[in-house]
Amino acid sequence: MHAMSDVRRRYANFQASKRTLDLTRGKPSDEQLAITHPLFEIHIPRAEVPRLLNYGHIDGLPEARALFAPYLGVPVENTMVLGNSSLAVMHDLVVQLLLSPLPGLSYSWSAWRGMDRMKPTMLCPVPGYDRHHTICERYGIDMIPVPMTKDGPDMEVVRREVESRGSLVGMWCSPRYSNPTGVTYSAKVVRELASMKTARGFRIFWDDAYRVHDLEDEPDEIPNFFELCERAGNADRAFIVGSTSKITSAGSGLALLGLSQANRAWYLKALFAQTIGQDKANQWRHVQFLKDMEGVRALMREHRAIVKPKFDGVAQVLRRELTGIPGVWWEVPRGGYFVSLYVPGHAKQVVHIASEAGVKLTPAGAAYPRGIDPADAHIRLAPTYPPLEDVEFAMQIVALSVRLALGR
Amino acid sequence: MHAMSDVRRRYANFQASKRTLDLTRGKPSDEQLAITHPLFEIHIPRAEVPRLLNYGHIDGLPEARALFAPYLGVPVENTMVLGNSSLAVMHDLVVQLLLSPLPGLSYSWSAWRGMDRMKPTMLCPVPGYDRHHTICERYGIDMIPVPMTKDGPDMEVVRREVESRGSLVGMWCSPRYSNPTGVTYSAKVVRELASMKTARGFRIFWDDAYRVHDLEDEPDEIPNFFELCERAGNADRAFIVGSTSKITSAGSGLALLGLSQANRAWYLKALFAQTIGQDKANQWRHVQFLKDMEGVRALMREHRAIVKPKFDGVAQVLRRELTGIPGVWWEVPRGGYFVSLYVPGHAKQVVHIASEAGVKLTPAGAAYPRGIDPADAHIRLAPTYPPLEDVEFAMQIVALSVRLALGR
Repeated sequence: MHAMSDVRRRYANFQASKRTLDLTRGKPSDEQLAITHPLFEIHIPRAEVPRLLNYGHIDGLPEARALFAPYLGVPVENTMVLGNSSLAVMHDLVVQLLLSPLPGLSYSWSAWRGMDRMKPTMLCPVPGYDRHHTICERYGIDMIPVPMTKDGPDMEVVRREVESRGSLVGMWCSPRYSNPTGVTYSAKVVRELASMKTARGFRIFWDDAYRVHDLEDEPDEIPNFFELCERAGNADRAFIVGSTSKITSAGSGLALLGLSQANRAWYLKALFAQTIGQDKANQWRHVQFLKDMEGVRALMREHRAIVKPKFDGVAQVLRRELTGIPGVWWEVPRGGYFVSLYVPGHAKQVVHIASEAGVKLTPAGAAYPRGIDPADAHIRLAPTYPPLEDVEFAMQIVALSVRLALGR
Repeated sequence: MHAMSDVRRRYANFQASKRTLDLTRGKPSDEQLAITHPLFEIHIPRAEVPRLLNYGHIDGLPEARALFAPYLGVPVENTMVLGNSSLAVMHDLVVQLLLSPLPGLSYSWSAWRGMDRMKPTMLCPVPGYDRHHTICERYGIDMIPVPMTKDGPDMEVVRREVESRGSLVGMWCSPRYSNPTGVTYSAKVVRELASMKTARGFRIFWDDAYRVHDLEDEPDEIPNFFELCERAGNADRAFIVGSTSKITSAGSGLALLGLSQANRAWYLKALFAQTIGQDKANQWRHVQFLKDMEGVRALMREHRAIVKPKFDGVAQVLRRELTGIPGVWWEVPRGGYFVSLYVPGHAKQVVHIASEAGVKLTPAGAAYPRGIDPADAHIRLAPTYPPLEDVEFAMQIVALSVRLALGR
């Protein structure tokens, strides 16, 4: 192990190189986007013009719904294919839950069970996806952090909150290769989330953003949450959400939504007030390009070939530089877009030290409600966007920053 | 003029033909969509992949904003190019006005000037666009109908309401070739709407849906509302809205929004909570295809060549069959998508009689808040979608239905 003077010398060398690197953004690299370029060379044939380019199909093109139903794990009649962003879908669902009565009930989240003075509250597994929290913050929804374990959200906390907190209206979940921990929920956790007793208007946003974003040969498998909810008599609990942002294009992709028939009827009314139909041309292109779930999986193997060496690079540097140093650990994910690094009491300091040497990291605490990580421990690393060489270079600076912060 | 027995005989003949025809939908015909087909054959070049297919640009692609700024009549830095539907944009603006504090103020529409018990109220020129009303109805916004005159909304009513109604938060306007009357607001009306004194959070949705949808050589011109508002010190009053739904594609088109810098800063925060970037590939295709405002106008001349004969057909049949019959009149528009037919006291009856002979019309009253036309007068005719021959056939049945209802 290097002595601290060596650490300082190496850090100073990196600093002197004056490179600036960015590990903040969980976005696909140019190389990844290039493999989906053929999708954007597909013509809409003349014969399809009347069907694809006019108003209509506010819940998506039938063949796109058929393609993505198995992706979400719901029947095609429960599948919607919507705009270009699943975040927009989740945002709108929250808005609609706040402003309009829930299916089968006389009240909305805003007037939750008639208790006007209470703020609706959601459970937020932490660390979690910052944009989930942004939605809550924006609309005055209180957030209860639920610590993540290696099996998913701590179900003791979930159970306690669901049983005792009258204002509890819903929960955010990233069940597979969770943003940012990389954790996949255990079968036991998934089953309990589906079957536990809750208030009737309680909703779980099952944000399956990394459904097919495996980094290993054996993908993590989880039970079908939609079916489990249905079987437990809780069909309306689940909003199953997905997108092709990290499959085809982050901006010109498709948002996917699976929901019960009661939720569907409820949401169609909301859609009628806001849209004249989906972008069916783009949905049609996606169907031609991806064809079926095997097509999706084949494309994801190409993504993986580009992305996997970067995750390996991150893990190697962390192992080489930080193994055996007390007060620091990390999670090597089996899928998804992030690596989580934990340095309790020093996360902010590490991010600052790294920035002084030109490496931009996501602000410490960003994965917690209101940006507050009480342990000041968590750092989110996003290695997909920069080239491999940059990732390895940046990670050395991150590792040295950790050692400087810890003085070890 | 034919005697009533002749009218009945002709109606019976039409009925016997058992054709079913639909004049309900203000949508482009297959022939119109065909002229924009080349847009959907445009490839995204490989060199543009990194810029177009990743996250970012939540207010639109810079060159798309530059193209559509003169369309909206606002500076490019006040222009946003958003999703595939201007209805979605107006819907979201209303939601954001209801849920978040207005720029420079401490309250939202929902807590309008601190008066919690009052329902926010909007002015709705009638007859108007039904989807504007749907948004109000859905979110509990009260609607005050303002009669349309040949110059636009009756400004005496507007003035009275703006001065006296404390709950008044905004107004819907379709300033050019208005849906469904075809009326273009006079310069005097536009100027007064921009300069009149209102509460600070008051907003006008300037839904310029038919900006370039002229049917005559000399287009109707109106003063620049955005500039007038700015000059009067009311820059934040105006949301200028447009779309390419009836230019390129109704579903794969673009939504356009012009707004003041204060509104822009306010709305960017709202967008951040709901989107990861616009569909830049589609925006880029639009820029290649339309190029500039001259390109837009050239395309609209092609649309007009298809659409104009249908409007002429409607006017001819109405003139031939109904001229001189008291208790009925109509407006021949100089642009837009609709013809308005008025049969006071008999609109519902006419729609019913026409339906018995196979002609589907928009339900009478649909253009009024909550579907209630107090005079039971207005019938909206949408001649763009069916082939010319069908339009003429259907219009004969409509005319005969009017005569049967009136007994003349």
